[in-house]
Amino acid sequence: MTLDAVLARIDADLPQATDRLLELLRIPSISTDPAYKADCDRAANWLVADLQSLGIDAAKRPTPGHPMVVGHVDGPDDAPHLLFYGHYDVQPVDPLDLWDRDPFDPELQDTPKGRVIRGRGASDDKGQLMTFIEACRAWKAEHGTLPCRMTFFFEGEEESGSPSLVPFMQENAEELKSDYAMICDTGLFDSRVPAITTMLRGLLGEELTITGPDKDLHSGMYGGAAINPIRVLSRIVAALHDDTGRITVPGFYDGVPELDPALRAQWDGLGFDHGAFLGDVGLSQPAGEQDRSALEMIWSRPTCEVNGIQGGYTGDGFKTVLPSKASAKISFRLVGDQDPLAIRDSFRAMVRDMLPPDCTVEFADHGASKAGQFDISAPAYDKARQALSDEWPDAAAYIGCGGSIPIAGHFQSILGTPPVLIGFGKDDDQIHSPNEKYDLESFHKGIRSWARILDALS
Amino acid sequence: MTLDAVLARIDADLPQATDRLLELLRIPSISTDPAYKADCDRAANWLVADLQSLGIDAAKRPTPGHPMVVGHVDGPDDAPHLLFYGHYDVQPVDPLDLWDRDPFDPELQDTPKGRVIRGRGASDDKGQLMTFIEACRAWKAEHGTLPCRMTFFFEGEEESGSPSLVPFMQENAEELKSDYAMICDTGLFDSRVPAITTMLRGLLGEELTITGPDKDLHSGMYGGAAINPIRVLSRIVAALHDDTGRITVPGFYDGVPELDPALRAQWDGLGFDHGAFLGDVGLSQPAGEQDRSALEMIWSRPTCEVNGIQGGYTGDGFKTVLPSKASAKISFRLVGDQDPLAIRDSFRAMVRDMLPPDCTVEFADHGASKAGQFDISAPAYDKARQALSDEWPDAAAYIGCGGSIPIAGHFQSILGTPPVLIGFGKDDDQIHSPNEKYDLESFHKGIRSWARILDALS
Repeated sequence: MTLDAVLARIDADLPQATDRLLELLRIPSISTDPAYKADCDRAANWLVADLQSLGIDAAKRPTPGHPMVVGHVDGPDDAPHLLFYGHYDVQPVDPLDLWDRDPFDPELQDTPKGRVIRGRGASDDKGQLMTFIEACRAWKAEHGTLPCRMTFFFEGEEESGSPSLVPFMQENAEELKSDYAMICDTGLFDSRVPAITTMLRGLLGEELTITGPDKDLHSGMYGGAAINPIRVLSRIVAALHDDTGRITVPGFYDGVPELDPALRAQWDGLGFDHGAFLGDVGLSQPAGEQDRSALEMIWSRPTCEVNGIQGGYTGDGFKTVLPSKASAKISFRLVGDQDPLAIRDSFRAMVRDMLPPDCTVEFADHGASKAGQFDISAPAYDKARQALSDEWPDAAAYIGCGGSIPIAGHFQSILGTPPVLIGFGKDDDQIHSPNEKYDLESFHKGIRSWARILDALS
Repeated sequence: MTLDAVLARIDADLPQATDRLLELLRIPSISTDPAYKADCDRAANWLVADLQSLGIDAAKRPTPGHPMVVGHVDGPDDAPHLLFYGHYDVQPVDPLDLWDRDPFDPELQDTPKGRVIRGRGASDDKGQLMTFIEACRAWKAEHGTLPCRMTFFFEGEEESGSPSLVPFMQENAEELKSDYAMICDTGLFDSRVPAITTMLRGLLGEELTITGPDKDLHSGMYGGAAINPIRVLSRIVAALHDDTGRITVPGFYDGVPELDPALRAQWDGLGFDHGAFLGDVGLSQPAGEQDRSALEMIWSRPTCEVNGIQGGYTGDGFKTVLPSKASAKISFRLVGDQDPLAIRDSFRAMVRDMLPPDCTVEFADHGASKAGQFDISAPAYDKARQALSDEWPDAAAYIGCGGSIPIAGHFQSILGTPPVLIGFGKDDDQIHSPNEKYDLESFHKGIRSWARILDALS
């Protein structure tokens, strides 16, 4: 049984695989911050070298931003050509004082819930990305070759809006086309139930800066008489939702479908524990639209969230300044056929309508992508689902996902390649937050899952 | 004419006096930031040494925070005992990138409007404080003695809420009592009209921090379902004013007097140029209560201003975080008989009432002082007004002031000493802002004004 030999090798090699991941996690490849540009490059070099060590023809490919890593390896004609996508960049780490250790000095930790790999990027997405590479490494060690023709495609800008991705895919479309694009950047349904994600929310990112006076003022001298841009910004932010939690941007709900009753029934059958989901983060009540379940809110309903707000003096102590500027970063999660560009226009018009005299606004664009829903009739879906079910305690589920992975849509629209989203993250991985971790079980069984999927598809 | 000799010496000594001020301005005595504690101490030492060089018995006096500087000098029995108050601490300097030069590398600059001393603290309050010391220096050089018994009292916590001031005044009340407390921390009415400020607004400083989830979350995973504390904070801030600019804190206007018609007539007679006042800072329309003039707003009406707001990711780029916390610093300027402690309670109750389930709030207290209105029937007022009128092109005015100088009320209530507020700052001094300056004319004629006042009172 060759699959068994591969799985046994994965088990035996787990300590070395973990060390390799820790090495990659030590590179602080924060893509959104220009200070870490050289580190992003270093992470790309690391991946190129690792792929080359597996006999893969890999190279760093320049972009106007951080480089892509692309690798190819040939395989038998009767097996499908698989592309594998992941990203080597990570989120910023602030607030740093909430981390228990240096986010870029990762380690394997024993916790009451089991062993975890702790560090920025452990789950999103370096740990996930390495599950696939480690599966290939074990396969190659046992067989001397890989089971099918493969393309590896890793980007370094996923956490900063992927500005180079679409142009790169368009320019290299022939090279990147494959039968399936396996994307490892999603999660399990829970620790027993693996998942293939077939619905993703879209994302519109907007930053607005309100300017009132042309300089910072003394609030004692000017307060009352001069307009305060924080007050203006707060009124705008407060107006984005009504009292029932609905988003008030005109036309926002155009194209939002009602959930298919069959899908709702399947979701209801998952036994999602709303109380535990919120309880894990210190909350008890869903905060969104009053007539929706928490699962419906995060998988199938659009949102508007302020991700950051800033204005005036925010240091220690007190400063009676009336600031010139105040700004906010706002993201909209989109579903169904919502049009991100129409919503951007409507949002900006709404903001401009709310500006008092003497105030101006500037907008910065942080990306716009439509929601994705994937056709699961391709045969790879059922095979992958069966392979996952063989590895984990319970059968795999087709699920939705609150996050946005715009690349899934790009594979479909630019390359005509159907995306297959399989990942092993957990809800408590604290991605984008302090103390990010990846369960050692996610890493281990993730590697084993890919070996099973390769076996099933080849 | 001995006054003429003193004035002539002030004119001759102006370059040296300016150099001394530049030396004091080079000490970054930011009281609100613990990183500058040693610098605050250094500024206090500098003042002690300078007072001692004038034969004044001066010493640094410890407090739980930054030290007081207290000096005494004896004088003839038939002249009043004058106390002089100023503060040696300064405001923080951010945003640093808006300064044209290092705020603590001050210099004398030629500008289209005349020569200015540029640097943090030039106007607020080191430059003002030095006008009085320089007047004493010139007097002493001509006469060998000072004209009256004097107490010098400088604090180093004025820009951070003066936490040590009241206890220190209470513990040293006998030592600090005098006939008049001259406070140099206010402004001219304009470049022709000097002023004695007889009305000051009070100040209530509040900081609130809203907590929703107990950790930062991924807005894609939790957005919509988990309450966002920035949204909650924005609703609270937005609700502090109604659409007509009135402040909505229950009971806020209790104790706010209508302006005395005679005083309103005097103010109307000042020919205050509302358009120029706002135009100087890039605005055109008063933003406060719709039925009040800008002068009324800043001198006689209470305000509520957000001085800082912060939550989530505020660095470069974008991060789809749903933060655990969001906070704001809010100051209220108070007038008449408004009770700062009652308003604090009412404000906090209003905030708590607006909290949704699952959210908590913490408050930090940044000081509370009542408004001040001073009795101008004491004879020193008229003498000082005449002396000021002799120095400046036009006659001096009794005016109000939008800022808060709590110490003025403390002199009255704790020591029974009537305060006399005379200063030479200008509206465009950019105190608390980048590029703070003090006109060389303010400094020069300020020193000359104090020499005249000393002559008139002694």
